[in-house]
Amino acid sequence: MRTAIFPGSFDPFTIGHLDIVERGLQLFDRVVIGIGRNSMKGETFPLAFRVESLKDYFKSEERVAVDVYDGLTVDFARMHGAKFLLRGVRTVQDFEYEQAMAEANRQLDGIETVLLYARPEHAYISSSLVRELYSYNRDVSRLVPCRLP
Amino acid sequence: MRTAIFPGSFDPFTIGHLDIVERGLQLFDRVVIGIGRNSMKGETFPLAFRVESLKDYFKSEERVAVDVYDGLTVDFARMHGAKFLLRGVRTVQDFEYEQAMAEANRQLDGIETVLLYARPEHAYISSSLVRELYSYNRDVSRLVPCRLP
Amino acid sequence: MRTAIFPGSFDPFTIGHLDIVERGLQLFDRVVIGIGRNSMKGETFPLAFRVESLKDYFKSEERVAVDVYDGLTVDFARMHGAKFLLRGVRTVQDFEYEQAMAEANRQLDGIETVLLYARPEHAYISSSLVRELYSYNRDVSRLVPCRLP
Amino acid sequence: MRTAIFPGSFDPFTIGHLDIVERGLQLFDRVVIGIGRNSMKGETFPLAFRVESLKDYFKSEERVAVDVYDGLTVDFARMHGAKFLLRGVRTVQDFEYEQAMAEANRQLDGIETVLLYARPEHAYISSSLVRELYSYNRDVSRLVPCRLP
Amino acid sequence: MRTAIFPGSFDPFTIGHLDIVERGLQLFDRVVIGIGRNSMKGETFPLAFRVESLKDYFKSEERVAVDVYDGLTVDFARMHGAKFLLRGVRTVQDFEYEQAMAEANRQLDGIETVLLYARPEHAYISSSLVRELYSYNRDVSRLVPCRLP
Amino acid sequence: MRTAIFPGSFDPFTIGHLDIVERGLQLFDRVVIGIGRNSMKGETFPLAFRVESLKDYFKSEERVAVDVYDGLTVDFARMHGAKFLLRGVRTVQDFEYEQAMAEANRQLDGIETVLLYARPEHAYISSSLVRELYSYNRDVSRLVPCRLP
Repeated sequence: MRTAIFPGSFDPFTIGHLDIVERGLQLFDRVVIGIGRNSMKGETFPLAFRVESLKDYFKSEERVAVDVYDGLTVDFARMHGAKFLLRGVRTVQDFEYEQAMAEANRQLDGIETVLLYARPEHAYISSSLVRELYSYNRDVSRLVPCRLP
Repeated sequence: MRTAIFPGSFDPFTIGHLDIVERGLQLFDRVVIGIGRNSMKGETFPLAFRVESLKDYFKSEERVAVDVYDGLTVDFARMHGAKFLLRGVRTVQDFEYEQAMAEANRQLDGIETVLLYARPEHAYISSSLVRELYSYNRDVSRLVPCRLP
Repeated sequence: MRTAIFPGSFDPFTIGHLDIVERGLQLFDRVVIGIGRNSMKGETFPLAFRVESLKDYFKSEERVAVDVYDGLTVDFARMHGAKFLLRGVRTVQDFEYEQAMAEANRQLDGIETVLLYARPEHAYISSSLVRELYSYNRDVSRLVPCRLP
Repeated sequence: MRTAIFPGSFDPFTIGHLDIVERGLQLFDRVVIGIGRNSMKGETFPLAFRVESLKDYFKSEERVAVDVYDGLTVDFARMHGAKFLLRGVRTVQDFEYEQAMAEANRQLDGIETVLLYARPEHAYISSSLVRELYSYNRDVSRLVPCRLP
Repeated sequence: MRTAIFPGSFDPFTIGHLDIVERGLQLFDRVVIGIGRNSMKGETFPLAFRVESLKDYFKSEERVAVDVYDGLTVDFARMHGAKFLLRGVRTVQDFEYEQAMAEANRQLDGIETVLLYARPEHAYISSSLVRELYSYNRDVSRLVPCRLP
Repeated sequence: MRTAIFPGSFDPFTIGHLDIVERGLQLFDRVVIGIGRNSMKGETFPLAFRVESLKDYFKSEERVAVDVYDGLTVDFARMHGAKFLLRGVRTVQDFEYEQAMAEANRQLDGIETVLLYARPEHAYISSSLVRELYSYNRDVSRLVPCRLP
């Protein structure tokens, strides 16, 4: 069984993230959405909200799991028996950022990073854009699969 | 069964290509190396040599097939029942080139492109480098898995 | 009156090109589509076809002109009283290519280059993609505004 | 009448910014310099100084307005009847950053982003460079059009 | 005598940094490792540790000096009679970042920036990666030349 | 004595090339301009012209030599006792192209590649631009140090 970790802060989870998970399910038998708890970055949407709304969203898709982690992504991957990290890339900047991470994760624990291109029509969507629009009371329902609080 | 096409001219097939095929076998049940016949680009190593040496190299790995094609990669993929293209990326330039191709192939036939990062130590290796060194009688045996003529 | 040149080979003219012209008309009073005759590159669709089909397409839009030129784009611009070049950019590679051209054109004749981002959903579309699909008898009617021969 | 917003923090306004405004005036009938108040980023030069010195600098150019805003740039644009954002780009990183913003602004309110290349001789100039040199008491008068306090 | 400054925070100094210093010694008669004190960024490893461990590491290489500085890198360079800055570049992002800095330093004081490519096998190594692994008690001894506290 | 090769086609040699040679002389004791004979690419200015005009230009600078070569740049470097290649980089595309070459040359013969940034005001200047302007009888005397035929 091939398991992939899809790691991120998902603050919040966007339709761009959803698209990568759905396409990842064509490639992997199981995808674990790993919500990294990052004490540094602060959070806009509470961790509990992010976990619960994602669990609810995927409740009928048993090949998707949702979990929270604190430490290194590779340790989280090992815990779930995953040999793959799944990442969506939109830009050259994403590409280079992931490249260094991927090599670090390969060196550390032999974890393989698999990249999918973000759909062009999603390329401008990011959690930080959603947060900004949300903070100005713009309707962001088209950008996120789970209704925000 | 998940089948991926690994397309290219492979003129010649390098250890960088080999590494992507081997890592692709962790991800897919079957990898078809598709040698595109490109009347435009000319060739340094005869097509027959490229096909036969690769078939010989992978003869004990039944999950790898080697085949030649003329037309669109997506047509070749359909013929082999493959829904995935496997590509190794080394540079930002590769990344952008593949991005347009990937979107074209998704639009045409719903074929998904899966990217793996080239290993850093292979990133400088390309078929054109091997051809250049070979033309000056440099030893390229470390750069190619199949002995060149 | 602000006139912009929209230069290219347009072999063929795609819906990506069309989108830039239409958005350029919001910005400029007049857009001259300049079809560069390039003896080096060869052509797939005859120059006469490209000129006539574009003239026909824009026949009711009097703010668009279609013309052919041989020499430097800046000379063509001067001839049309244009102080601007209009360019669509899709990728980092486009961006850098245009940057050197823009500076050359500014130094030569004070011509200003104005960039618009290609729509994401058009970013994979290029004349060379259309030519390739066309050569394999794929339907490209969704990619070009003018019916191909 | 074509109005463009030229948004930024302008902390401080540099000769690179000035060059974009001046070239923007060739393209647009009116340019509104929009000083975004960003509670997150802190400020080096007081907002009042930035507003007043710019208003003073452009006092004889009635096609330039200077204004402050808090919310989304697209809301500020609508308020000024502007359909365009004007942006100068220096680097690939700028290009990609603006690309996502431009698409977001187009989706939100149909605002078009127009890019001009920074002059090569200005490409190294940024507000953060000026702030750093200023903090070490270096003479920055060549880098800014308005005398700093 | 040609002297180069190799500036950075070195929090901590990695084997990637070491490689650039060693290769710099082929090119320059003397390399001064300049540890910039940056009150903004905070530090993980105490400045005293960084200085002492580096001085100890290079104690038998008299062509390498280690020093701390507060202000502009160009002022530090002048103090050491250095006309060159030595920088290692790994990525496109590094390349563009250094490009603006290099031009600023050339304009300010005629200091020349000399770039060497990071070795591919080091390209993923950064101080921030080491800090992250260290914070999770991973063994980082292969990534740093000086034993961490 | 530190010798660097400055390799290229120099068809023709531009003021951008000249600037790199002059700055290289600050860094190296000797710079050998290596004119690569490339049977593939064709030539606009005869090899004899390129060699003679450069020799003449540098006749009073004994630290610069001009030579022609056919094979691999590393073989030419060894012949001249050079351990360094000197390269100017203008763009991200240059940077990535040189990166693969530099690694190949390091692996082949331990040759080190040293990069200098092109001056911003030269970044748009290339031999191909000069050739194009020359072919249309534009005055290119500001772009080349040696008078063209």
